Amino acid sequence: MKIEAVDFFYLSMPEVRNVGDGSQDALLVRVQAGGCSGWGECEAAPLVSIASWVCPMSHSACKPIRDSVLGQRLEAVDDVRRINALVRQNSLDLLQTDHTLSGIDVAMWDLLAKKQEMPVYRLLGYPRAYPKTPYASQLFGDDPAETHRRAGEVRRAGFTAAKFGWGPFGRGSVRADDDQVQAAREGLGDDAVLLVDVGTVWGDNVAAARLRLPALRRCRVGWLEEPFVSGALASYRALAAEAGAIRLAGGEGCRNFHEGRAMVDHAALGCLQIDAGRVGGITTAKDLADYARGHDVRFVNHTFTTSLALSASLQPFAGIETDDLCEYPVAVSSLAAEMTTTRLVPGPDGRITLPDAPGLGIEPDTRAIRKYLVDVHIELAGKTLYRSPTVE
Amino acid sequence: MKIEAVDFFYLSMPEVRNVGDGSQDALLVRVQAGGCSGWGECEAAPLVSIASWVCPMSHSACKPIRDSVLGQRLEAVDDVRRINALVRQNSLDLLQTDHTLSGIDVAMWDLLAKKQEMPVYRLLGYPRAYPKTPYASQLFGDDPAETHRRAGEVRRAGFTAAKFGWGPFGRGSVRADDDQVQAAREGLGDDAVLLVDVGTVWGDNVAAARLRLPALRRCRVGWLEEPFVSGALASYRALAAEAGAIRLAGGEGCRNFHEGRAMVDHAALGCLQIDAGRVGGITTAKDLADYARGHDVRFVNHTFTTSLALSASLQPFAGIETDDLCEYPVAVSSLAAEMTTTRLVPGPDGRITLPDAPGLGIEPDTRAIRKYLVDVHIELAGKTLYRSPTVE
Repeated sequence: MKIEAVDFFYLSMPEVRNVGDGSQDALLVRVQAGGCSGWGECEAAPLVSIASWVCPMSHSACKPIRDSVLGQRLEAVDDVRRINALVRQNSLDLLQTDHTLSGIDVAMWDLLAKKQEMPVYRLLGYPRAYPKTPYASQLFGDDPAETHRRAGEVRRAGFTAAKFGWGPFGRGSVRADDDQVQAAREGLGDDAVLLVDVGTVWGDNVAAARLRLPALRRCRVGWLEEPFVSGALASYRALAAEAGAIRLAGGEGCRNFHEGRAMVDHAALGCLQIDAGRVGGITTAKDLADYARGHDVRFVNHTFTTSLALSASLQPFAGIETDDLCEYPVAVSSLAAEMTTTRLVPGPDGRITLPDAPGLGIEPDTRAIRKYLVDVHIELAGKTLYRSPTVE
Repeated sequence: MKIEAVDFFYLSMPEVRNVGDGSQDALLVRVQAGGCSGWGECEAAPLVSIASWVCPMSHSACKPIRDSVLGQRLEAVDDVRRINALVRQNSLDLLQTDHTLSGIDVAMWDLLAKKQEMPVYRLLGYPRAYPKTPYASQLFGDDPAETHRRAGEVRRAGFTAAKFGWGPFGRGSVRADDDQVQAAREGLGDDAVLLVDVGTVWGDNVAAARLRLPALRRCRVGWLEEPFVSGALASYRALAAEAGAIRLAGGEGCRNFHEGRAMVDHAALGCLQIDAGRVGGITTAKDLADYARGHDVRFVNHTFTTSLALSASLQPFAGIETDDLCEYPVAVSSLAAEMTTTRLVPGPDGRITLPDAPGLGIEPDTRAIRKYLVDVHIELAGKTLYRSPTVE
């Protein structure tokens, strides 16, 4: 079978707020081949990714992504790898490429696994999917009292691990940050796992990060996530040397295998966090899960959006029993909640288990797509280059 | 003064061919502040970069680039650095950001230097600009005879150094590649500097690259450029250990300081090649020129387009006497040739000297902009989000 069509559905909340909640819009991708549909999601600016799909060629290594996807044979896993390589070669100088490819790759895995009537993780070579312990992932409150309240809520909801991130943390005084971490620890209780995500707030400034280590230590924070931007290898390495029991986590900004590998090889990470919707899809995420395991670095998904994106980011390490944590967004937008007909939620044991249905096991909800769809129309030199697909 | 307007001009040849000639289109950027205009160029897919300028916000770290630029104070170099940091923070999760920022940053330097009536290199802190020896940069011919002819031509035109790249090289047999390099050496003559650029053709495959080393050695090739994709640090390092006198060159794909630094720290490069139109502009390119010099790695521009882009990419290392080579495209499109009223060409001594006029010293030609302009119109939900500016 050949890839007959690829469609992008740009969904958005009516109002997008200036907060770190990545679930306020979504770029859903549908790949069609051999009478079957696969679905994926790009963790990416939707309009920019759509432009990278249709833009005119600039030269032989800066082509629109569609040139390397439409009409391609898609029969087996090797075809997915071949298409990945082709996209990256033909669109080498188009920076947005990896984010756009990610959703397409996820949809190709979903489609192939459906055709072969098995879950994606089986197609990836894992005999089974191990349940993961979810850490409730949410933003810091605007003040410690709000953080304390949110921590209590997730604890009462049954989570034994939680991560707080973004918001005011790292932007004000060291004292204010100390109070935030303290509030999170108190709200969660002594025995829960507490993780902190600072969303690259210190750029590459090790000195700013260092000042927060005592409070993180006192509150027994398991990992400090993204003190620096992805790729600031030397800063990560320097901070790790001082951080002791606090492991450094990072990698969500990685856009290909080499960037992820560099974070393992040269950043002294304790935990590599990969978003299948950014790194190039399930193919690249699986390669990095293998690489991390071979180098004693914990692998974990990065996900802050829908159940579809969550399933896609869990598949690459589903079969690795020792990588037993997973990020689980607990306060997503109505768009993210409604976008799929089924949702991945913690089971009676409090853990997340991937569906054993074919493909990703998560289907989009057509009503939600229709409800949140943003119509895009791009004209070049007076001619229509792109128009959003209609939803049946 | 504040930034009042930023305009993008998407220029294209009427027909873009499927070859590695990056001068077939251009994205020109004009920044206006305090009654003055500065010009820059993004080495980027034009439509995708325009989309990154105007796209709706996805969340607090995925904003359109214009949100961090329009209305900003632009009085001094510190403002340029501040705007760079703001763009990268607010558009962290928008992958295209660095390519779009590049043209804006270049235009801000041009504008500031014009205001202060000095060349950009002076504003960068260099007392003077040293002339550079240009290497004639062009594509391999489709066969060795064509490559031999092109080599003879640039030699007769007075160039003492030449680089051949892309085309069929690395895609066929080792023997065919040997013949190509041999033809280039014979066409150039024994005493000229010969460089080879393979445009990431081997991905990260060290074995494929290794097979070409004997011919490169026999033909005394000065450097082998981009055997692998930017960021494939381990592959570069492994090949460098076997390459002996043949230095490895790379870095044109770097999109920020950290990626360039990683190529110096971990890829065993002999030469770091930075395109100011991709890496984030003159600001980041200068930081990398300083870093390379401090680590005994030669810095050189990457440029395959207009005189405006060439001037922008030369400014960051203009004052470093020992980095005395520069890439010089010799067979650009009519668009690239006509786009500026003045052109940077080798002087009577065969070398390239930056103009000592204010700013970049290169002005766009309004007639050429009008001639090659591609009109872009983007509508979201039935409302115009973006329309190309008109040319006065």
